[in-house]
Amino acid sequence: MTTPEAVTPDPGPDVAELTVGVLGGTGPQGKGLAYRLARSGQRIVLGSRSAERAEAAAAELGLGVRGADNATAARESDLVIVAVPWDGHGPTLESLRAELAGKIVVDCVNPLGFDKQGAYALRPEEGSAAQQAAALLPDSRVTAAFHHLSAVLLQDPEVEQIDTDVMVLGDDRAATDTVRALADRIPGMRGIYAGRLRNAHQVESLVANLISVNRRYKAHAGLRITDV
Amino acid sequence: MTTPEAVTPDPGPDVAELTVGVLGGTGPQGKGLAYRLARSGQRIVLGSRSAERAEAAAAELGLGVRGADNATAARESDLVIVAVPWDGHGPTLESLRAELAGKIVVDCVNPLGFDKQGAYALRPEEGSAAQQAAALLPDSRVTAAFHHLSAVLLQDPEVEQIDTDVMVLGDDRAATDTVRALADRIPGMRGIYAGRLRNAHQVESLVANLISVNRRYKAHAGLRITDV
Repeated sequence: MTTPEAVTPDPGPDVAELTVGVLGGTGPQGKGLAYRLARSGQRIVLGSRSAERAEAAAAELGLGVRGADNATAARESDLVIVAVPWDGHGPTLESLRAELAGKIVVDCVNPLGFDKQGAYALRPEEGSAAQQAAALLPDSRVTAAFHHLSAVLLQDPEVEQIDTDVMVLGDDRAATDTVRALADRIPGMRGIYAGRLRNAHQVESLVANLISVNRRYKAHAGLRITDV
Repeated sequence: MTTPEAVTPDPGPDVAELTVGVLGGTGPQGKGLAYRLARSGQRIVLGSRSAERAEAAAAELGLGVRGADNATAARESDLVIVAVPWDGHGPTLESLRAELAGKIVVDCVNPLGFDKQGAYALRPEEGSAAQQAAALLPDSRVTAAFHHLSAVLLQDPEVEQIDTDVMVLGDDRAATDTVRALADRIPGMRGIYAGRLRNAHQVESLVANLISVNRRYKAHAGLRITDV
């Protein structure tokens, strides 16, 4: 058998002018993502339950990042990244249904439990955090992405490249294309389409394995997809 | 924050003299793995329900590979890779409990369903195929590995390197070290410890996402873990 030529992912839509909201933007993952996107020239509104805390985190990041309460951040953005803790994910999204209507929502939440043996996958009733978001936000275009990033590397200004692929999941092709293009803006990062939302659980849960890798190898592990 | 130095995985135990059995060795994944290991100098017994089919597949592979029925392959091997179809996984292992006692068992089975939208994860009652194996084989040292390999690439003699990391899971440190060392023998491949068996489900299921990647990008996708 021969290996077919790999298809180079197309650049996708132009996302440079999109305003990106980051809910839970004061946590390490949200703040790190906001920093990387802002550093790549994206217009960012960082959201938090407390507008004051969001404004403080935004001021810390600089790069034109604004801070607001979650509802304002959602309202003022074209595309909204959900980086809130799993504990609170459902109620937060439910309360923002109107603000998120018609928008691309990117869920990057990893439902995990922790005990003395480390991290393990939690199983949301809907199948995954992303499917829960889709169930709660019927008028939004829900995707899942940005699960496997090290918050430490994202936030470290001395790290120039984030050498990681971003698996992008969703049932709306144009929405996943937009999210892929957004990931592509961060140096070193590639957005790769990796299936429908029904296959989000294992992508979310794989963070438990990366935590094991990090412990064993003292690493900030990420993933690359080969042959793409 | 600074990035700690990555720890180079140690070479692990010497596995060159181990005889490796491959149950389900006439299927594409098992046959491909048997081929790669034999090509790296490993002594292989390829197992199948039918000794005749196993012998035919072994003869096709050459490289000193022998064929036998699954029970004989298990009995004559030091370490046994389970590459049987998910449908039949439980009964096959249950029937080989005596032959597999005391041995390292490497489960590489991916429980997947397929419909017109593609592949999706099945959820074994025990949590994962590997946990089912551990439940059925209390006297064996059950690990999970070799899930994300392209059978096409494994079987293609013109492919010199398999540029993929192998996530190795298990609760027995010495057993996972041995399996990692086995993966390391295949050029391009690295065995990386990636957690306990309770975190095997997402590793097994991720094959559904790689199938989506393959469809979209016409690739034979594999994974690399970065920063290790």
